[in-house]
Amino acid sequence: MMTPEQYEESLEKLNLSVYMFGKKITDIGADPIIRPSRNAVAKTYEMAQRPEHEEVMTATSHLSGKKINRFTHIFQNSRDLVLKSKMGRLLGSHTGCCFQRCVGMDALNTLSIITHAIDQKRGTEYNRRFLHFLSRVQDQDLVCDGAMTDPKGDRSLPPHQQADPDLYLHVVEERNDGIVVRGAKAHQTGALNSHEIIVMPTATMREADKDYAVSFNVPADHPGITYIMGRQSCDTRRTEGHPMDMGNLYYGGHEVLMVFDDVFIPWERVFMYKEYEFTGPLVEKFTAYHRQSYACKVGVGDVLIGATQTIAEYNGTDKASHVKDKIVEMNQLNEALFCGTLACAHEGHAEPSGTYIVDALMANVFKYNITQYPYIISRLAQDIAGGLMVTLPSEADFRAPETGPLMEKYYRAKTDTSTENRMRILRLIEAMTLGAQAVAYLTESMHGAGSPQAQRIMIARLVNMKEKQKRAKHLCGIEEKP
Amino acid sequence: MMTPEQYEESLEKLNLSVYMFGKKITDIGADPIIRPSRNAVAKTYEMAQRPEHEEVMTATSHLSGKKINRFTHIFQNSRDLVLKSKMGRLLGSHTGCCFQRCVGMDALNTLSIITHAIDQKRGTEYNRRFLHFLSRVQDQDLVCDGAMTDPKGDRSLPPHQQADPDLYLHVVEERNDGIVVRGAKAHQTGALNSHEIIVMPTATMREADKDYAVSFNVPADHPGITYIMGRQSCDTRRTEGHPMDMGNLYYGGHEVLMVFDDVFIPWERVFMYKEYEFTGPLVEKFTAYHRQSYACKVGVGDVLIGATQTIAEYNGTDKASHVKDKIVEMNQLNEALFCGTLACAHEGHAEPSGTYIVDALMANVFKYNITQYPYIISRLAQDIAGGLMVTLPSEADFRAPETGPLMEKYYRAKTDTSTENRMRILRLIEAMTLGAQAVAYLTESMHGAGSPQAQRIMIARLVNMKEKQKRAKHLCGIEEKP
Amino acid sequence: MMTPEQYEESLEKLNLSVYMFGKKITDIGADPIIRPSRNAVAKTYEMAQRPEHEEVMTATSHLSGKKINRFTHIFQNSRDLVLKSKMGRLLGSHTGCCFQRCVGMDALNTLSIITHAIDQKRGTEYNRRFLHFLSRVQDQDLVCDGAMTDPKGDRSLPPHQQADPDLYLHVVEERNDGIVVRGAKAHQTGALNSHEIIVMPTATMREADKDYAVSFNVPADHPGITYIMGRQSCDTRRTEGHPMDMGNLYYGGHEVLMVFDDVFIPWERVFMYKEYEFTGPLVEKFTAYHRQSYACKVGVGDVLIGATQTIAEYNGTDKASHVKDKIVEMNQLNEALFCGTLACAHEGHAEPSGTYIVDALMANVFKYNITQYPYIISRLAQDIAGGLMVTLPSEADFRAPETGPLMEKYYRAKTDTSTENRMRILRLIEAMTLGAQAVAYLTESMHGAGSPQAQRIMIARLVNMKEKQKRAKHLCGIEEKP
Amino acid sequence: MMTPEQYEESLEKLNLSVYMFGKKITDIGADPIIRPSRNAVAKTYEMAQRPEHEEVMTATSHLSGKKINRFTHIFQNSRDLVLKSKMGRLLGSHTGCCFQRCVGMDALNTLSIITHAIDQKRGTEYNRRFLHFLSRVQDQDLVCDGAMTDPKGDRSLPPHQQADPDLYLHVVEERNDGIVVRGAKAHQTGALNSHEIIVMPTATMREADKDYAVSFNVPADHPGITYIMGRQSCDTRRTEGHPMDMGNLYYGGHEVLMVFDDVFIPWERVFMYKEYEFTGPLVEKFTAYHRQSYACKVGVGDVLIGATQTIAEYNGTDKASHVKDKIVEMNQLNEALFCGTLACAHEGHAEPSGTYIVDALMANVFKYNITQYPYIISRLAQDIAGGLMVTLPSEADFRAPETGPLMEKYYRAKTDTSTENRMRILRLIEAMTLGAQAVAYLTESMHGAGSPQAQRIMIARLVNMKEKQKRAKHLCGIEEKP
Repeated sequence: MMTPEQYEESLEKLNLSVYMFGKKITDIGADPIIRPSRNAVAKTYEMAQRPEHEEVMTATSHLSGKKINRFTHIFQNSRDLVLKSKMGRLLGSHTGCCFQRCVGMDALNTLSIITHAIDQKRGTEYNRRFLHFLSRVQDQDLVCDGAMTDPKGDRSLPPHQQADPDLYLHVVEERNDGIVVRGAKAHQTGALNSHEIIVMPTATMREADKDYAVSFNVPADHPGITYIMGRQSCDTRRTEGHPMDMGNLYYGGHEVLMVFDDVFIPWERVFMYKEYEFTGPLVEKFTAYHRQSYACKVGVGDVLIGATQTIAEYNGTDKASHVKDKIVEMNQLNEALFCGTLACAHEGHAEPSGTYIVDALMANVFKYNITQYPYIISRLAQDIAGGLMVTLPSEADFRAPETGPLMEKYYRAKTDTSTENRMRILRLIEAMTLGAQAVAYLTESMHGAGSPQAQRIMIARLVNMKEKQKRAKHLCGIEEKP
Repeated sequence: MMTPEQYEESLEKLNLSVYMFGKKITDIGADPIIRPSRNAVAKTYEMAQRPEHEEVMTATSHLSGKKINRFTHIFQNSRDLVLKSKMGRLLGSHTGCCFQRCVGMDALNTLSIITHAIDQKRGTEYNRRFLHFLSRVQDQDLVCDGAMTDPKGDRSLPPHQQADPDLYLHVVEERNDGIVVRGAKAHQTGALNSHEIIVMPTATMREADKDYAVSFNVPADHPGITYIMGRQSCDTRRTEGHPMDMGNLYYGGHEVLMVFDDVFIPWERVFMYKEYEFTGPLVEKFTAYHRQSYACKVGVGDVLIGATQTIAEYNGTDKASHVKDKIVEMNQLNEALFCGTLACAHEGHAEPSGTYIVDALMANVFKYNITQYPYIISRLAQDIAGGLMVTLPSEADFRAPETGPLMEKYYRAKTDTSTENRMRILRLIEAMTLGAQAVAYLTESMHGAGSPQAQRIMIARLVNMKEKQKRAKHLCGIEEKP
Repeated sequence: MMTPEQYEESLEKLNLSVYMFGKKITDIGADPIIRPSRNAVAKTYEMAQRPEHEEVMTATSHLSGKKINRFTHIFQNSRDLVLKSKMGRLLGSHTGCCFQRCVGMDALNTLSIITHAIDQKRGTEYNRRFLHFLSRVQDQDLVCDGAMTDPKGDRSLPPHQQADPDLYLHVVEERNDGIVVRGAKAHQTGALNSHEIIVMPTATMREADKDYAVSFNVPADHPGITYIMGRQSCDTRRTEGHPMDMGNLYYGGHEVLMVFDDVFIPWERVFMYKEYEFTGPLVEKFTAYHRQSYACKVGVGDVLIGATQTIAEYNGTDKASHVKDKIVEMNQLNEALFCGTLACAHEGHAEPSGTYIVDALMANVFKYNITQYPYIISRLAQDIAGGLMVTLPSEADFRAPETGPLMEKYYRAKTDTSTENRMRILRLIEAMTLGAQAVAYLTESMHGAGSPQAQRIMIARLVNMKEKQKRAKHLCGIEEKP
Repeated sequence: MMTPEQYEESLEKLNLSVYMFGKKITDIGADPIIRPSRNAVAKTYEMAQRPEHEEVMTATSHLSGKKINRFTHIFQNSRDLVLKSKMGRLLGSHTGCCFQRCVGMDALNTLSIITHAIDQKRGTEYNRRFLHFLSRVQDQDLVCDGAMTDPKGDRSLPPHQQADPDLYLHVVEERNDGIVVRGAKAHQTGALNSHEIIVMPTATMREADKDYAVSFNVPADHPGITYIMGRQSCDTRRTEGHPMDMGNLYYGGHEVLMVFDDVFIPWERVFMYKEYEFTGPLVEKFTAYHRQSYACKVGVGDVLIGATQTIAEYNGTDKASHVKDKIVEMNQLNEALFCGTLACAHEGHAEPSGTYIVDALMANVFKYNITQYPYIISRLAQDIAGGLMVTLPSEADFRAPETGPLMEKYYRAKTDTSTENRMRILRLIEAMTLGAQAVAYLTESMHGAGSPQAQRIMIARLVNMKEKQKRAKHLCGIEEKP
């Protein structure tokens, strides 16, 4: 396993083509807007080095038998899945944000199942290729970006009927030595901190779209791949030189648009091509895994609850019954979420490849709640924080001789609480509910791993309604004809 | 294990002193109001005989090594706890009501821990006595009523300060051969279907209340015990001779006030006496177990969801998007509940006695949601059922020559749906949301195993707020003095 | 205006054909199940006699200039509409139930608009006939049953395509002197307490259904009309001779199926026939008025909130912060409802006939909330009431010598609170959340005046989305082509 | 009335002492961060000039009989209050933000009542002074900042016990010609766009705090007053030169800390001094008025709903039933809010001074919902907007030759929708739910005019619980002793 330092060094060697605010970024690691997201990924390396977190953060490779970072592991039993959920909460509570490494983990596990399934039916050799790749990922402790979401264009049309065929990533040329792909992947979380990209189809494809039924891996800095940084609320506060206003001083996330401009992929890296009937199962497996991954938001919730309790103490309102009651409500919601991610993991089962996967119904039920509860928790945090959260002057004002003393005087709450600390915790709550961290805690909770309606559709599909009706009919005396 | 028939016979031998509507009931088994509740308990025997439910319904006794009904089992591992949750849902979905046997199971497991703990500290022999009792319960497959809730009188006063000292059950005389107790236990679910009563203190006692710190078992028909049946919504529909109007034709529950009028308990049956410092742990363990037990409501929810889907089909509205959406919502809530009861079970741990117990925080989080979601599910069921649910004439009208044909004509919905079946399913929904079954699905979900505020207090106590604050403070740069 | 006594006498003269539990009821006024509903209507006469309620309960007829009961009034200005809302709350809080006289009032106002509109377009004389009828209603202070809801059969088919054409009420014969109608009206609230029936079409009709586009009035005891009583939760408690168990000792509601078996209607009583293009407006006006009428539930909510505060005091929990907080929540919801019914009234406008009508959007918004909030208020009431609400033995037990003293002893809470009073208030809460009154407070709130989806459809139709989009687009710089 | 241009000119003449980011701002009107807030206030002048809005935006002065801007009007009847609510929604929907002029209007109306009341009891001449001031405000069409909220320090202590006595604004010197005040007012909305400051006490004062019982007006640029700008989410996007990223191109708000460093106030401008027993009524009147003022959020909600409908159309999802259903939900919530602000206005009454004031209970009920619903509406907007809302690159990227074409290509949704317009509407939703406008739509809705708990306390105080209990007790047969 790499140390955080080795991870940073490994990234320095990459030559990514990145744009932000209309300009090419040359030194990505030094960019203050990108830096917090890199710190968050580095945290996944640091925590894996700590003895007290060994069980949660590491695993034993089923390929090599060596200790590996859990983010590169193929789940061998339900316990592995449960530890994944616990790892998510742990890291979320240490970073207060998205640490970006789950998508790759979920993509690896999905491909371990799907490549095996395709091979079984089609006699292909995708699983061998995949395991070869996996072996390298585990040995070198790499970060993989799982690239699934296409831009999609007109949502009422399938890929091949789009006005622009590139609105879904597809194969534009088939060569002896591999394929050439074109298209884009949107909302790529943490892509600039990844060594490898794992591309997967974004939806169930039919025969007419078989050129879109493609999965492969490619080094993140492969020529022809361009990254355009997405904006986030309050992103430029990181450039102001006054870290207090960032709220979270260390960690963050990022999202990019990743464009593939006729990128060549050798056959050895291709894990699916034209087997469109496996796109449905691939998406279903991946989303089940990835919905479980929102365990991280429980950890982020821990941070927000801790911040809320702290501001209540600083404001001197922590003994008020309505404040205590709201904090119980925050905890209730947060722990109910934790029950969901744990339950789907505990109730996991083995796929034919041997890989363990979560209970899909419960994973969807959990993720659906993730699209709702953080918004309520966030509202309660703002309630307890008080209005100062959005009327506080800048750290620059606090440091200036004319205004600093006035702020020191007038923003003092309880005498034993420093004004600066009160400002710091308010800025953290602001960041998590309106600022850079709110992007991950709220909007990403809504849409990551599929929007709420996607979960509702799966829930409708996965419950056994016939059985429920049979029980109800029996109890009230309705006889069904056979 | 007993068959349902043997269970019925065993109850016939009991000589209970029961009052209802101001009269003494002589043939309890024949009483139409009590009968459905006895059927529900009998179902716990029937299901245990079925091979397809063997894993869920039975266990191997850690005392005798024999196969026993899971309701008499002491949980030996997390899996046992998980199967308890699954048994609850299974039986709930087969009966659509409370099957009354959980409280005894939870009391047994609690006492296996607490008698062991008292003995360890005090050198008593409670655990031996308890295991002796347990052995009989397991061998004879007995139903135990777990009797905890005292009338409580003025809730702002401890037991010994009540105007009437009997408002909490207590020892009024200590003799060489045992103790004499007086008092009452309220809200005793299914007591009339039990062989044995297990009395436990209802709250944490202090030294001044040590005569109230008493636990013991006593045969249900012991002289001096009087039962007064509680009323339930629509209870007398069971006496009308028109079963359709009952909604649920077979099953139900009951609650009684159980009065102890100077009942003698020999020492061999006493499991705690005066060890007041163990009352708090006893209550905490019991409530953790019993909060998990509300898994049954997920099964009852299955029935209500099944009934709702059925009436939608009968009404011809099942394809309407808002109906489908509401049914998804019902399932989402029901499955989120299931996640809770499973998670607290999977995350169980062993107590010093070897007994496994659920994660208390998660059990409380789950039970809190049980106090809310069934009310929402019930509202959605009424929404989809339509107003006919509360304006439908009686079955007697349906059978009468003057009115039956008019009802047949005017209550017909889709041509391929019989009017009678439509009426039946509406009556079931009525029973579950306003009638006899609503008592268990709604109000019992609210107050059984502790009212919602009791869960909130436990949640506040069980979360690690200091750790959350530490993480939040670190992230925003607040340095804490050691 | 009639006194309550005169009202009772006037009903005695009617010769209604009523069935309940399969038998014909001869003395309706003496029937204990029907009696509370008659009391509730009588209350509308009693309150109109009280000087302190004169402004709210009475109005000045725009026809005769005489003082009339507001229930027979045609609204002449917004203030009339506002007083209607206030009358609803007032009576709801005095009866704790449905007082059944709103539907007729809403039907009268609707017909005052629609008959005028048809005449304007078609040169008919419906308005003259209607005013003649109205004049009699006002002078004699009659109760009118507004009969709108047809059984509807297969909801996916229009009236004329139903397997049985009678599933919507329609004209089966046109004669020189009038029409003959056949069909039924379901969910007829309070019909047995009415002097006159006002029939209206239940939905928008198209030309093929023009025989169903019929409105008229008919005396309640006209030959050929049969009433079948609907069951309600706990209806038979009224027959047990122990009024305490009824919860609400005095008032209640009822619903009937009303069947028209070839009933002749003379032309003078016909207010619409074949003018199908006016069925849509008629339904829209009526539902706007009738959705406003759910103001009564605010009054019923007052009773439930008062009962909840009382049981909290009796239980000794009224000072607990969570109890106080829940009661605030109940009030918040109840008063938010009141805002809705008032706002739609204040923002009313005059129709061409001069009749004032509520703002339709707000009336729908209000009624939609009525389909939700009472369920929450009801849950909170059960939360605070405690489990005893559903485990309390019967009044018969309380009166019996063996069990009464035990109940007296063990159900005593605070020493200064009588056990009997505690039982009484618990029975009231039971009745309002699970029993006879729950039918009106919950299920009728859901479906009366249209189910929630009906309101949502109207809201979608009534908001000005184009204007909202125009504002949004302007603010972000989107230029729309003209 | 001033034109917008005249308003701008009038502000140019002010010499405010303003700090932002640690520096003094010299040309306030030119500052890009402040500019949108000035535009929003200017809109209140512009709209008052438009004939189609004359009724809503203007009124007739009860002092001069002249047409004045409604923001300077003293409400003479309920209709005035209703038009105030409608003005709020109108301006909110035109600016999509806070237009800052309500606090002054509410302060004026409050003082018209309170100065009159003090004079009546104490024989003072506050009302004359106030009317003199009011006359000038009306004639010159001035913007008044209503300055109420003190920093408050330790919330468990009254003003005079604070470690620093200045944590509440107070009189530090009484002179022949006036008073000298010291302290600060926090969260001052739109202060930099005001001509006059109206200071009021922030809470009920007791005798020991009588030096804090002070109200007066002072020109905004009076020496000794310092303003420190508060930060808002995404504030600096306004300085980047790429307006699309602002979302709302034109309007915004601002909040400042306003510090009074020994400011002299001549007697003629003092409206209360030492009459501490009137501080409670003053706060209660002011908060009732100001809670009504949140009518603006209904207008802001209109914009967000319009934006959401627009992005649904652009994404091609507007026909999906779940999208339509969520938009109905947004409208339902928004219109339910409107009912509240209208109801409290319609039900207003005259104070002894002749000024009309809203129904306090309803105003509190309305404002409480304002602390909740915008958060739900905001979540639904994010749900429908899709994840692109938070992953979209900057406008700078869109304008750059390397990245612009890629964005144009890959962010195209439906072929007839321009990519740029799609980006614009997404940025507006981002701004309203996470960015600069979210401060006003969410957090200000939470805390402005009092945090939710303040409303709950008032609701508990204002409902007539005794009457509710009386009704409930009567219905279940509880006889109360007199």
